[in-house]
Amino acid sequence: MENGSSILVVGSVALDSVVTPKGESREALGGSATYFSLSASFFSKVLVVGVVGEDFPNRHRRVLEERSIDLSGLQVIQKGKTFRWVGEFGKDLNQARTLETHLNVFEHFRPKLEPEQKEAPVVFLANIDPELQWEVLAQMTHPKLVACDTMNYWISSKRAALKELLSQVHIFFVNEEEVKLLTQEENVLKAGRILSEWGPEVVVIKKGENGALLLAEGQYYAFPAYPVEDVVDPTGAGDTFAGGFLGYLAGAGSSVAMRDVQQWKRAAVHGSVMASFTVEDFSTRRLEGLASVHLEERYRKFLELLRVEDPSLILPTVG
Amino acid sequence: MENGSSILVVGSVALDSVVTPKGESREALGGSATYFSLSASFFSKVLVVGVVGEDFPNRHRRVLEERSIDLSGLQVIQKGKTFRWVGEFGKDLNQARTLETHLNVFEHFRPKLEPEQKEAPVVFLANIDPELQWEVLAQMTHPKLVACDTMNYWISSKRAALKELLSQVHIFFVNEEEVKLLTQEENVLKAGRILSEWGPEVVVIKKGENGALLLAEGQYYAFPAYPVEDVVDPTGAGDTFAGGFLGYLAGAGSSVAMRDVQQWKRAAVHGSVMASFTVEDFSTRRLEGLASVHLEERYRKFLELLRVEDPSLILPTVG
Repeated sequence: MENGSSILVVGSVALDSVVTPKGESREALGGSATYFSLSASFFSKVLVVGVVGEDFPNRHRRVLEERSIDLSGLQVIQKGKTFRWVGEFGKDLNQARTLETHLNVFEHFRPKLEPEQKEAPVVFLANIDPELQWEVLAQMTHPKLVACDTMNYWISSKRAALKELLSQVHIFFVNEEEVKLLTQEENVLKAGRILSEWGPEVVVIKKGENGALLLAEGQYYAFPAYPVEDVVDPTGAGDTFAGGFLGYLAGAGSSVAMRDVQQWKRAAVHGSVMASFTVEDFSTRRLEGLASVHLEERYRKFLELLRVEDPSLILPTVG
Repeated sequence: MENGSSILVVGSVALDSVVTPKGESREALGGSATYFSLSASFFSKVLVVGVVGEDFPNRHRRVLEERSIDLSGLQVIQKGKTFRWVGEFGKDLNQARTLETHLNVFEHFRPKLEPEQKEAPVVFLANIDPELQWEVLAQMTHPKLVACDTMNYWISSKRAALKELLSQVHIFFVNEEEVKLLTQEENVLKAGRILSEWGPEVVVIKKGENGALLLAEGQYYAFPAYPVEDVVDPTGAGDTFAGGFLGYLAGAGSSVAMRDVQQWKRAAVHGSVMASFTVEDFSTRRLEGLASVHLEERYRKFLELLRVEDPSLILPTVG
């Protein structure tokens, strides 16, 4: 993979209306491909494949363009309406409650890739119908690193297609609830192992404010989340995490071996840092206002928080 | 504090009957002082202050004695019955459900310290009535490091006494549910800050399988738990964590500055390692069979899991 590899992401670009204990946002920029690409764009070139209606505001489009995200694969359906999600978060902010989902133009979305898109070495199949994820992957000419996400809805309705897809995926991002549902195993660590037997080289179990577990080469690596005291809106944190994770790997390009545990760990730290910003404001606002200097500062601080110096074990003084 | 300082622990020595999805144990060795002292005994001398009935089995006593734990402060009440706890854990193993609590000899327990006990430089006031915790602390001649734990029952019934106690404590161990109940703040990180304003220099928020948060010098440090795939019985994990944490600090003695963030972090890692053993079997069995070599091996492995190498930030290649 050459330096600064590009990432293709296929997923939703949406208008979100969200209520949290800190306030609300209406018809704000959202969607899995949106959060992913904004996050990844800090590290690598990103090409979005998705669909919106003609009601998709120009100001939202500009947010993505300002981060040099390639929107040539974002179809605009004339007279169509953009995908909308309405949700709320309760006091503990850990779980979104979906109030309304309007698929709109997303209902008949059949992604067809252009030559440049087919050649991207890294692809992120964000949370859409596993059959569509498969269709996209089948069009790629030589994907070096394939990652995907999913959700409870697809696990329940299209489990076989999802399982088939996982056999072709290198990295699977999944949350605690989903991993249990998918494997029918209550112990998250055992559930992750079952998943890894289905194909993915790396399983990343996202735990929100409790961080993430990374299973690679048969070994679990646990990461705490960066401690954010003023969580405003957790929407998009998971996709932002995936964006930092894959964006870092793509940006690192050929200068590092892809199949290296330390590389996965660094990717997880990048994902955590990006997600910690997203939750600090509604929608994509915090990512929009982010400069590299903020990112680097928090990255350094996070590593400092994680670092355990002079790890000498004090052995038994008694007994 | 001289090298290898001793720790005084006051708390329960109990007979536990526990059911988990992995099986059950009956009238097994348990209690907060038991788990704490077994764990701390790997690093420092431990003196137990507590009470049992004459029904307390000699084989349980020997488990503690074999780790050179000083039981001269463990009163035996003739014709009395030992404190008993009956509980169960459901599928997710995160929360114990108490089925029965029989205080027995613990009901009228009024700890009175002997000279050697009064002079211990480190004291752990395990989960008992805050008024008793206070009585013990008042008898100490020159405690250098005071730590305590509590539970929902005391938070609800003796909040004022507990708050008063916290003003005299250096380290407070508390779990997520308790910290929210005590401060009436839903955000765990904010709740921890409120607690630290009440007095403790260090607040340690225990999150079970999700690790721990350490608040010291105004900064949060997050630690994942050591990933244990076969959790058999989580009973005692919190007290074992505290035992590893304080045992390490006491064992390190004067060779390190006490008020040092790196020292607190190392203590948290020691606590996590000890707790990861406890949950692997019922009651104290895993701690009983533990040799220093197992402990050191897991400690090294945990640090290796936590370590992020060559943390170079890949800065924007685009935009």
